[in-house]
Amino acid sequence: MGEFDLIKRYFNRPAKRSPLGVGDDCALLAPAPGMQLAVSCDMLVEGRHFLSTVDPFRLGHKALAVNLSDLAACGAKPLAFTLALALPRVDETWLDGFSRGLFALAEAHGCDLVGGDTTQGPLNICITVFGEVPAGQALLRSGAKPGDDLYVSGTPGDARLALEVFRGGLSLPADVFEHVRGRMEQPTPRVALGQALRGIATSAVDVSDGLLGDLGHILRQSGAGVRIDTAIAMNLIAPHAQLARVAGHFSSEKQLEFVLAGGDDYELVFTAPPASRAAVQAAAQGSSTAVTRIGVIEAEPGVRLVDAAGQLLHRHYASFDHFA
Amino acid sequence: MGEFDLIKRYFNRPAKRSPLGVGDDCALLAPAPGMQLAVSCDMLVEGRHFLSTVDPFRLGHKALAVNLSDLAACGAKPLAFTLALALPRVDETWLDGFSRGLFALAEAHGCDLVGGDTTQGPLNICITVFGEVPAGQALLRSGAKPGDDLYVSGTPGDARLALEVFRGGLSLPADVFEHVRGRMEQPTPRVALGQALRGIATSAVDVSDGLLGDLGHILRQSGAGVRIDTAIAMNLIAPHAQLARVAGHFSSEKQLEFVLAGGDDYELVFTAPPASRAAVQAAAQGSSTAVTRIGVIEAEPGVRLVDAAGQLLHRHYASFDHFA
Repeated sequence: MGEFDLIKRYFNRPAKRSPLGVGDDCALLAPAPGMQLAVSCDMLVEGRHFLSTVDPFRLGHKALAVNLSDLAACGAKPLAFTLALALPRVDETWLDGFSRGLFALAEAHGCDLVGGDTTQGPLNICITVFGEVPAGQALLRSGAKPGDDLYVSGTPGDARLALEVFRGGLSLPADVFEHVRGRMEQPTPRVALGQALRGIATSAVDVSDGLLGDLGHILRQSGAGVRIDTAIAMNLIAPHAQLARVAGHFSSEKQLEFVLAGGDDYELVFTAPPASRAAVQAAAQGSSTAVTRIGVIEAEPGVRLVDAAGQLLHRHYASFDHFA
Repeated sequence: MGEFDLIKRYFNRPAKRSPLGVGDDCALLAPAPGMQLAVSCDMLVEGRHFLSTVDPFRLGHKALAVNLSDLAACGAKPLAFTLALALPRVDETWLDGFSRGLFALAEAHGCDLVGGDTTQGPLNICITVFGEVPAGQALLRSGAKPGDDLYVSGTPGDARLALEVFRGGLSLPADVFEHVRGRMEQPTPRVALGQALRGIATSAVDVSDGLLGDLGHILRQSGAGVRIDTAIAMNLIAPHAQLARVAGHFSSEKQLEFVLAGGDDYELVFTAPPASRAAVQAAAQGSSTAVTRIGVIEAEPGVRLVDAAGQLLHRHYASFDHFA
């Protein structure tokens, strides 16, 4: 199968929301009047971002999910995406699974594949995603204020737990492993929550390199610090993962590390003033996404982790860095 | 140097034309009222799209140039781009050259780097580019009509001549080689010409896989065929390359092949009705880009190559295909 047949068979679906999709030199996007276009781009490399053994359906899902997660963190509504794909060879079973996983998530979010590129090379998946956000309403990293509450969505830590099992660092009961493996391989971008937080959250970021690492972007860009209640934070991990910890599969210290510095979570971390607590809960309910208040923004720079008694913990967690 | 320092040092320049550039979860673009956003994406893989020995400054230029060439083929004005980069290691000399080449071309076209991704992996450069075009005025591949003239810009064939030297298939005088090598390694996207052809050209495509191969997209999507005057077409190659041919470095047959099926040209192939000949020449002059009329669109599908006497030539040229 040649390059153009490959594109036609697996990646050419009619664009529903874009004036021109796959098949010309450029695609055309027409944001509605008063809308800005939010743009983000993520590249996934085999062995770095996914294991070579991953189910291609799940990989197709994840490749788009990590990009939709960036739109979510800006409060943008998904519109379209481009896909550039370097493939070592034409593997039709792989392409079938990958494209089905990709389009299942794309169609769930009304997001058109409008263009891209296909080439021979070491497996590499690069997606650029486009969303709409009303002008001036995008959630930024720079708006956190001292006194704001700090929230996180969902169950950070799950994906890292799965990674530790793949690395041989720990073992888990089969049902717990299947759950956290699904969280690692097929994460849920918090797209509806991000849009619901427009006008409520003062800042937001999505968690890919670890909760504290990505929160660090908010703190630096807002010129602020944070106090985090670790007794609450550590229990964010999925409930049946907690049962596995109680059964001795890993320690409380590791549980806290997985939550705060696990990575690959694709949850939203965001801030909002205390006066907006009811609005935050309404946004969470309206988007069927759990959010938990885990701390407070402070004027003093730095991260302060406290235990249930309010005592400072002295821990250092590194954020993921591809070149560190 | 870590990932974020690398981005800061080499790739974080203030966005001049975009509401929000590098440094948040998404960039924000605000197309002017009445404008559509043209989007294109190209992935460059070491060993496929460039040699590992290429000057990184030229590679930075080329990575963006091949994308700007797609905007040119749509008649769009460059606005912004994202860059995703997989690097085997942090090589500061390479990054310095690459980023200087990239930004030199970006700034020449008023095109902001607004976001991207950096990761460890086999060298891979993926750029997605955004341009503005008035709604309904984009040049498409589908508008060629029987009777339209067929044009090509510049000097297709040069890049292939350089590639043949690198492959050991022929040798050239040093000055000729330096010229065609520059054309291969640092192509000039025909951005001004593309915009000047809005409202004049009935179809357009940029030449990356070979003139006939990319013209094939116009023919298929327009439901038409073409007659090409090879006596004119073969002399499109750079004048001093023609002198090298006269001196015996390669044959006339090869010269025609390089022009019609060379690849990596980043010239524009386009059609326009005979009534627009003066307008086409004005667009060419206004954009300081040579264009040559090499044939005519016909109702009968297929490509007919004719010699100076109007006799049909029986040749078959393959278009570049990454998986063929």
